[in-house]
Amino acid sequence: MSLRLNDGPLQPGTVALVGAGPGDPELLTRRAARRLAEADLVLYDALIDPDVLDLARRARRVYVGKRAGRHAVSQDFINRLLIRAARRGQRVVRLKGGDPFVFGRGGEEALALANAGIAFEIVPGISSAIAAAELAGIPVTHRSISTGFLVVSGHAEEAYGPILRSVAPNSVTVVVMMGLGRMQSIASLLVERGWNALTPAAVLLGAATESAESLTVTLRDLQRGLDLEDTARPGTVVVGEVVGIREGLVPSYEAPGVGRASRTVYAHGSR
Amino acid sequence: MSLRLNDGPLQPGTVALVGAGPGDPELLTRRAARRLAEADLVLYDALIDPDVLDLARRARRVYVGKRAGRHAVSQDFINRLLIRAARRGQRVVRLKGGDPFVFGRGGEEALALANAGIAFEIVPGISSAIAAAELAGIPVTHRSISTGFLVVSGHAEEAYGPILRSVAPNSVTVVVMMGLGRMQSIASLLVERGWNALTPAAVLLGAATESAESLTVTLRDLQRGLDLEDTARPGTVVVGEVVGIREGLVPSYEAPGVGRASRTVYAHGSR
Repeated sequence: MSLRLNDGPLQPGTVALVGAGPGDPELLTRRAARRLAEADLVLYDALIDPDVLDLARRARRVYVGKRAGRHAVSQDFINRLLIRAARRGQRVVRLKGGDPFVFGRGGEEALALANAGIAFEIVPGISSAIAAAELAGIPVTHRSISTGFLVVSGHAEEAYGPILRSVAPNSVTVVVMMGLGRMQSIASLLVERGWNALTPAAVLLGAATESAESLTVTLRDLQRGLDLEDTARPGTVVVGEVVGIREGLVPSYEAPGVGRASRTVYAHGSR
Repeated sequence: MSLRLNDGPLQPGTVALVGAGPGDPELLTRRAARRLAEADLVLYDALIDPDVLDLARRARRVYVGKRAGRHAVSQDFINRLLIRAARRGQRVVRLKGGDPFVFGRGGEEALALANAGIAFEIVPGISSAIAAAELAGIPVTHRSISTGFLVVSGHAEEAYGPILRSVAPNSVTVVVMMGLGRMQSIASLLVERGWNALTPAAVLLGAATESAESLTVTLRDLQRGLDLEDTARPGTVVVGEVVGIREGLVPSYEAPGVGRASRTVYAHGSR
């Protein structure tokens, strides 16, 4: 088993755990594009761009996203598919949105492969943890404004609560991935902890996809609640003074309807 | 000015702020490779692989790394170079290691360009903040082990101190970039704050370069100090239970001399 980036092609009987990045096919790594072209089988998640899948010219492509039909495909089932295909001598790409090791359960898949004695490699991808903000004109760190950033998943309170309740107010940029559904309680937690209620925050929908949208508000606005049409969309919330930098970078325009908290919406990411 | 990823080529008189990723040319994005091929001028930092620079076939390539000779090239001077070249109608790539918006001062360059009325785009790169650990077999998040990660720069105590002193002990994976020189004081800070002294930690040198090396130790080992030959090398320190996952992923072997704290060194990343 090897984690190294070797210069040869993907070998039969091995698996590449590949990050697809935040959506735009241009933000794939060269290695990811190469591995897709070499693959016999690609197991892919939701939110992968069709143009990315088309790079896998020779491969059978199997959708194993968690929203496939009514029943989620279990992680255990995916692990067994990967192992079985590799044992049959296939060149397998496991293609995951963003980076495979950031809330992607890539570590679990890697451990399952290692336990089964299957050789694998890991191909990092551009993570929305950094790039969703970046593509909206927000640097997660900025000299004299933010000297660090904290990334949590907004999926469950027990996951983010202990971390966000402890970190010193306004000491760090906070990035909440998959956090749209819990924006209100997260914002309340931060304000109760002592964060300035006027701290700027950005709600970033769709990262680098064609339907990317973003909204600049404050913690107080988030506390009161936004009228987002679809909080089930993949979204990232960024909280911190760095959010203010985008105003210097992106020309703003007025657009209706995205949220009552702010009517100022910035265009970005559409292609 | 636009932050969007447009599908056309780099226009004369514009600047692309491009992340080169953690070292290996295979970990460039397809967009980064394209922008290099289109550029008239590339301003690049230290630690950029020569094979990456060679993609800029048409361009004049100017090294502006902070270690150029005895005198550092000032940020202000770089900003003025970018602006002047764009005003002359050149297609400019500003190539930075990792991601331009993670401790890369990319935000400052973007603001300078915006203030000068120069059109620019941002091309995210794979950041060592996530990929250095990943390429060593360490996921910064892992179900039931770590539900978040905190990234700080080890450059100055006033930058990381308030953050690391506040966050609840052992609640999060800590990633310290450029942290080799201050490993001892950072480890002491964490243990005094209440982190378990036996928390595993990884010292990752050279990220995805040919000279990549890594070392698995504990916070206590870091406190006592490691005999690293060259703490001026670019390095990342990762602290948290996720470090233990690599043992299940990477075959270990005995190698002498990297640190007295641990003789177990894992091979990875070499090509």
